[in-house]
Amino acid sequence: MKNKGLERWERAKRLIPGGNGLLSKRPERYAPDLWPSYYKNCKGVKVQDLEGNDFIDMAQMGIGTSILGYADDELNGAVLEAVKSGVNCTLNCTEELELAELLLKHNTFADQVKFARSGGEAIEIAIRIARACSGREKVAFSGYHGWCDWYLSANISNTNNLDDQLLPGLEPIGVPPSLSGTAIPFLYNNTEDFLKKIDLNPDIGIICIEGARYDYPKKEFIETIMKAAKEKNIILITDEITSGWRMTDGGVFKLTGFEPDLAVYGKSLGGGFAISAILGKEEIMKFASETFISSTMWTERVGFVAGLNCLKILIREKGWIHLNKIGEEIGAGWKSLADKHEISLSVTDFKPLVTFKLHYDNQNDKILTLFTQEMLKRGYLAASSVYVSMKHTSEIVSTYLKNIDEVFAIISKAIKKNTVDDLLNTKVRSDSFKRLT
Amino acid sequence: MKNKGLERWERAKRLIPGGNGLLSKRPERYAPDLWPSYYKNCKGVKVQDLEGNDFIDMAQMGIGTSILGYADDELNGAVLEAVKSGVNCTLNCTEELELAELLLKHNTFADQVKFARSGGEAIEIAIRIARACSGREKVAFSGYHGWCDWYLSANISNTNNLDDQLLPGLEPIGVPPSLSGTAIPFLYNNTEDFLKKIDLNPDIGIICIEGARYDYPKKEFIETIMKAAKEKNIILITDEITSGWRMTDGGVFKLTGFEPDLAVYGKSLGGGFAISAILGKEEIMKFASETFISSTMWTERVGFVAGLNCLKILIREKGWIHLNKIGEEIGAGWKSLADKHEISLSVTDFKPLVTFKLHYDNQNDKILTLFTQEMLKRGYLAASSVYVSMKHTSEIVSTYLKNIDEVFAIISKAIKKNTVDDLLNTKVRSDSFKRLT
Repeated sequence: MKNKGLERWERAKRLIPGGNGLLSKRPERYAPDLWPSYYKNCKGVKVQDLEGNDFIDMAQMGIGTSILGYADDELNGAVLEAVKSGVNCTLNCTEELELAELLLKHNTFADQVKFARSGGEAIEIAIRIARACSGREKVAFSGYHGWCDWYLSANISNTNNLDDQLLPGLEPIGVPPSLSGTAIPFLYNNTEDFLKKIDLNPDIGIICIEGARYDYPKKEFIETIMKAAKEKNIILITDEITSGWRMTDGGVFKLTGFEPDLAVYGKSLGGGFAISAILGKEEIMKFASETFISSTMWTERVGFVAGLNCLKILIREKGWIHLNKIGEEIGAGWKSLADKHEISLSVTDFKPLVTFKLHYDNQNDKILTLFTQEMLKRGYLAASSVYVSMKHTSEIVSTYLKNIDEVFAIISKAIKKNTVDDLLNTKVRSDSFKRLT
Repeated sequence: MKNKGLERWERAKRLIPGGNGLLSKRPERYAPDLWPSYYKNCKGVKVQDLEGNDFIDMAQMGIGTSILGYADDELNGAVLEAVKSGVNCTLNCTEELELAELLLKHNTFADQVKFARSGGEAIEIAIRIARACSGREKVAFSGYHGWCDWYLSANISNTNNLDDQLLPGLEPIGVPPSLSGTAIPFLYNNTEDFLKKIDLNPDIGIICIEGARYDYPKKEFIETIMKAAKEKNIILITDEITSGWRMTDGGVFKLTGFEPDLAVYGKSLGGGFAISAILGKEEIMKFASETFISSTMWTERVGFVAGLNCLKILIREKGWIHLNKIGEEIGAGWKSLADKHEISLSVTDFKPLVTFKLHYDNQNDKILTLFTQEMLKRGYLAASSVYVSMKHTSEIVSTYLKNIDEVFAIISKAIKKNTVDDLLNTKVRSDSFKRLT
């Protein structure tokens, strides 16, 4: 019998293509027949499902948005005041300017800011501004940068171009074929591939990379990109939507020596509320006033108030130190328990979004599904990544790791006896986009 | 001496290109040296500026978003509960599905829904879905449909193409030149121009029009579009971001006989909070699952809860009847007082966004600035349009019209004596985008 959440999910898939607005919130990515799928309320790191079961979130924390933990009292207090004072007026709200000032204080390379609501939208604005300034339309990129045409057009010439960036075999249907050749992917941390693509496309005007994803960019990779950009007068964008405010008071670029012209923040910026920002040098950002970039919802007050107060808290607490410490503890715990139980697993370097990777070829998804299934039984939302929040403590990690110990024992035995399939009470998880449709 | 809001605005323009995220909230569009520009709080139809002055909003009501009036108690009550329960979880919120169900109940032509946050973004999604389904990239459109590449590309071949749709002489800088010829504008309510454009571009796959703007679409215009769409298998999109929920429980298309394949709502949908929606027939919407459309912020709870509760209130109260009645009163009042004072002015047909147009050629902006200046003195935010809200009453309109009587007397005298310039204590307003940069 399906849980109430999954019953609702079946209805949702009939009325909403894909079931919701975000791939990462689909139950098919976790344990398709067991995942609670919907929540009633959440607070700190606790999530209550529709049946009233409580879970501790050792998974996605709102896919990285709820960096302060769920329903943080201080952040919510500020938002509630804003709501009472009216959120969308004919006049402007003061927090738009205040958030701009705070962002610029902690991003000294930049002089100006624009705001949007969604992450993909913010990157789209950065690309527009960069193209306006550069006068060249061709963008080289590495990593995931959203759903918009400029990015998906990479797959027009070859539907495997985004395999290593996003998902395998994405059909770019609905993206104007005219855009073919305007977006050139290169492999992350692969200097050789980068140089090859730059040589093949001398008219590239913009390079867009992620601040970090699973691992940090290598020094050589960063330096080669910066050298090419300088020589060819290319505009550099750092997409810090995933990585921002988790390692520094700003982007990961502050650690790696990468010197961007534009930086984009999203996800964590509003602590769960919708807000994103594009920052940059004045000589580039000024083009935001030359081209038409304007949208009603970008001026709604909740996003600015949430951003302002979320950043104030993170800066005051030096939140990134905590996020790293907890991520280190989780990663070290996984590794040590995997060694104990002889599970072949490696842990990635970017600790605020700590991730383990299994090394069992085409068995990985099965094993991971078993992991999620067994952790659900123990009261955890768990997957191979944890977006650490300010409300995750060493005590929570310690109890979590005791449960991991039990579950890794089960998994280890199942792998050795080849009984993973027998133990599964659910279909196997899948990252794939297509299989879900 | 500048007011506190304008002082802040000067600072904002240095740090945020354009000063904010929305052209329509720039003081330069009203009375550049007098407009309060920023608000402290707003409630019902009252707005308090940074100096503590109270104004009655007989202008934009959050540029059409705050359809229930500012900080509506019932709407805010629902939002506050959602905030306390956590707004961005690893699991999905139930209100996404509930809002989809409510929207479909009142849009029986449609089977499925996708959500976004901003209006431009929602139209961009509709265009992606329509292009994916049609297999053709070319879009014919009339009206304003946002800031995105697909739309602004209309000006690549000729920077005057959007003159009658949005603003004169927009440079499409930063929009890929590759998109040239993919967006074809036609004049609103001009059947001949529409047929010309369709004949010139036999490969058009999509037509996108506004539900209504200042006036309703004519029967012949609508029927001609529908006939062409049927013959050429073209997908029809109605952009109801401005017009939705103000004339019917859904779009204006319900009144005009227009039969869309896709409808897009925004602005009023969340009563001021950020939410937008794309609805359509299953055979078209299903392509939203074939192409990659996904964004983290689209799944944040506040937008869904606001949308759900704003629509429940509007449907329960049959809000559109009130909006029309009040819009009629304002329009009739303007006309009658203009006649009394011999001011040459006409009033547009779409009453929930009732608008007067002055007929003094290049004097219009001066006169309108004087109007705003004099109404500010009397405690009103006033412009040539009023987005009517549920909190505007006949009593409010009646007192407003007494003030209009006084101000029209001043204006009439100034026009006759040619002293408009002498009376102005501010620079003249401008709709222009360029002059503000």
